[in-house]
Amino acid sequence: MSNSHKGFFITLEGIEGAGKSTHATYMADLLQQHGHQVLVTREPGGTAFGEQIRAILLLHNALNINAMSELLLMFAARAQHLAEIILPALAQGKTVLCDRFTDSSFAYQGGGRGIPSEFIYTLSNVVHPDLKPDLTLLFDLAPATGLGRAKAATTADRFESETIDFFNAVRSAYLKIAADEPERIRIVDAEQDIESIQTEIKQMMNHLGLC
Amino acid sequence: MSNSHKGFFITLEGIEGAGKSTHATYMADLLQQHGHQVLVTREPGGTAFGEQIRAILLLHNALNINAMSELLLMFAARAQHLAEIILPALAQGKTVLCDRFTDSSFAYQGGGRGIPSEFIYTLSNVVHPDLKPDLTLLFDLAPATGLGRAKAATTADRFESETIDFFNAVRSAYLKIAADEPERIRIVDAEQDIESIQTEIKQMMNHLGLC
Repeated sequence: MSNSHKGFFITLEGIEGAGKSTHATYMADLLQQHGHQVLVTREPGGTAFGEQIRAILLLHNALNINAMSELLLMFAARAQHLAEIILPALAQGKTVLCDRFTDSSFAYQGGGRGIPSEFIYTLSNVVHPDLKPDLTLLFDLAPATGLGRAKAATTADRFESETIDFFNAVRSAYLKIAADEPERIRIVDAEQDIESIQTEIKQMMNHLGLC
Repeated sequence: MSNSHKGFFITLEGIEGAGKSTHATYMADLLQQHGHQVLVTREPGGTAFGEQIRAILLLHNALNINAMSELLLMFAARAQHLAEIILPALAQGKTVLCDRFTDSSFAYQGGGRGIPSEFIYTLSNVVHPDLKPDLTLLFDLAPATGLGRAKAATTADRFESETIDFFNAVRSAYLKIAADEPERIRIVDAEQDIESIQTEIKQMMNHLGLC
């Protein structure tokens, strides 16, 4: 564990329709069965402030939010989420499962919207200089598959109106980050059926000594 | 003019009750009389996005917003304000009068809330790497005077609940910035009566060749 916190910080990443929230629930159950105290959370975070930010982001098109402002909003919500929820839980020794974190900024605002990754790196260094996820699961799948699933489940969000090109750029950025940090970021093939994915997750958690 | 833009970028700074908006109107009239095309604006900016951010900031205490999140929100609004309003006006050769800009972040979130100024400098370098005000008027006065005025005028805003210590720290930060950049930042004694302040502004503008 490279971080100084007592707990274990796991993030889940991937494009729309990758099944992150389903997998988070499965992982939480698994970890709890093995004695972990688990906190499941997601960005922009279950804080009153985060809900306000989420409401603004949902107005993305109406407000014509520029990419830099979107990036800064994400980090504003992240700073609050860290201070209110994530850091206290890690300090208490909990295992935190977070649906999206800074890798999403590199993928969406970086890869998707074209903001230079040095800017995003600079911001992450200001907002959480001493924190990185201990483990990140990247649920990877083709955008066409993911968007089809998201649409079927009507969980499509503000990125719904983006093109397949956008999601291809997001996916490429994710895969590049994963290639740069193979120790931290494990790629899970999210095109598989759910049982196969759960088996893969369980083996990985077992291998890492988490359960 | 150190900036590459065609127009002239003037910012007004100072604590609550310094009379910035009154002075902005006076300066705009003066500049227009002397042939300038003037745009008067203020942070978080007359954009739909900025209004949303302003609404969140007004909930400051209820949402328990941490200092870093507040700082990032300010820069999110600033990035949008720059993209939608300020940079297009400067590109058209207009004289832009802006009530508060990045110096406010150094004074309020830096001096007032204790965020290291290197962080704020880093953010300003990401959000507006090539832009600095051509001229900044710092309306300086004792917090007790300013808050008394703001209260009388019921213009007190979300900082209303802050203590005199907070505003003393904000004022000190402003004066430090002004000492660091005496060419750009001109201090106006805002304890004077309004006619004396207007005379001082007029002389300054005249001296700078603006009217």
